[in-house]
Amino acid sequence: MLQVAPSPEEPCLRADAARNRARLLEAAARLIAEHGVAGVTMEAVAAAAQVGKGTVFRRFGDRTGLLMALLDHSDRQLQADFLGGPPPLGPGAPALDRLRAFGVAVLYRSAEQLDLQLAAQPEPTRRFSHPAIGARRTHIAVLLRQIVPDADCDLLSQTLLASLDPALIHHQHRQRGMPMERLEAGWTDLVARVTRTEPPPR
Amino acid sequence: MLQVAPSPEEPCLRADAARNRARLLEAAARLIAEHGVAGVTMEAVAAAAQVGKGTVFRRFGDRTGLLMALLDHSDRQLQADFLGGPPPLGPGAPALDRLRAFGVAVLYRSAEQLDLQLAAQPEPTRRFSHPAIGARRTHIAVLLRQIVPDADCDLLSQTLLASLDPALIHHQHRQRGMPMERLEAGWTDLVARVTRTEPPPR
Repeated sequence: MLQVAPSPEEPCLRADAARNRARLLEAAARLIAEHGVAGVTMEAVAAAAQVGKGTVFRRFGDRTGLLMALLDHSDRQLQADFLGGPPPLGPGAPALDRLRAFGVAVLYRSAEQLDLQLAAQPEPTRRFSHPAIGARRTHIAVLLRQIVPDADCDLLSQTLLASLDPALIHHQHRQRGMPMERLEAGWTDLVARVTRTEPPPR
Repeated sequence: MLQVAPSPEEPCLRADAARNRARLLEAAARLIAEHGVAGVTMEAVAAAAQVGKGTVFRRFGDRTGLLMALLDHSDRQLQADFLGGPPPLGPGAPALDRLRAFGVAVLYRSAEQLDLQLAAQPEPTRRFSHPAIGARRTHIAVLLRQIVPDADCDLLSQTLLASLDPALIHHQHRQRGMPMERLEAGWTDLVARVTRTEPPPR
């Protein structure tokens, strides 16, 4: 599996500090899963990870820093999975299977951390230029070029990614009550239509 | 052509007041086209429409009220065009032609008023529940049901609409320098793929 590159601001994080950071982020992720973003305070994370409050502040500065680090951690994890993890998300499976698996992975990860992703949405003029979004778009475009080499894969990748927008998932799943299974089937159907292929047998 | 319903807050606007309001909005739209959103001040609109500044304040309250009224005016105009205007955008053309024309109309209108649309983007949890967005989605879904009745047209309409997001148009056209003709061709291609039809001859 591909190693996730260290954050640029922490190029030489020592192994124990890195473990410590990972433990804090895992504790914060658990808190979000159980109580939503509102449940994440510096104190609660310290208590859940069984470290002193000062350690959490030294590591992340403040609560916003912690939330950003959490999202960044999750983005890197997803990136490691689609660049170097096991197939069908990672290399080794046909491009069409990888594209299907990618959307499903993004859908369920987004649903798990919707509050966090909505709280962290950049302003409109920066929404599509965010590096994590750029990495996802590039990945989709690379796969599309193998499936439909004659298409404008750059534009199609934007459209596919736009259908996985956390604000849209929030609207469909939470505001309109669509079950995640329907969104998953919708993604699979969309990929089939966009690539002009047959949908996989159910 | 279908009459645009009066704003709910102004059910009985007298004819001369309505004309006055339209004149102010036209003046504001001209200012935006020439100088961008930053060029729209209450004073500039009053001068351009040759009325007193007090009239503009009485009508719209403040600059934000004016910008919102302008966007609402433009939404209603588009809505009137696709519900009751001439084909292919309005009724009378085949559904597929209307769907193509709809996206092209939205693309160019958005490009004309990008600054205004970006300034008025609601927060993430309300982005897809805005009434104007709902009306557009419904229109796309109604057309799709005539073209691909067996598909999940509700989900597909969301995807098609997401590809016309003003923030995305801003990113593609302004930040990445894609010409509008490419975005237009991309929409036509996307409609063909999603409906599993052939693209129209160029």
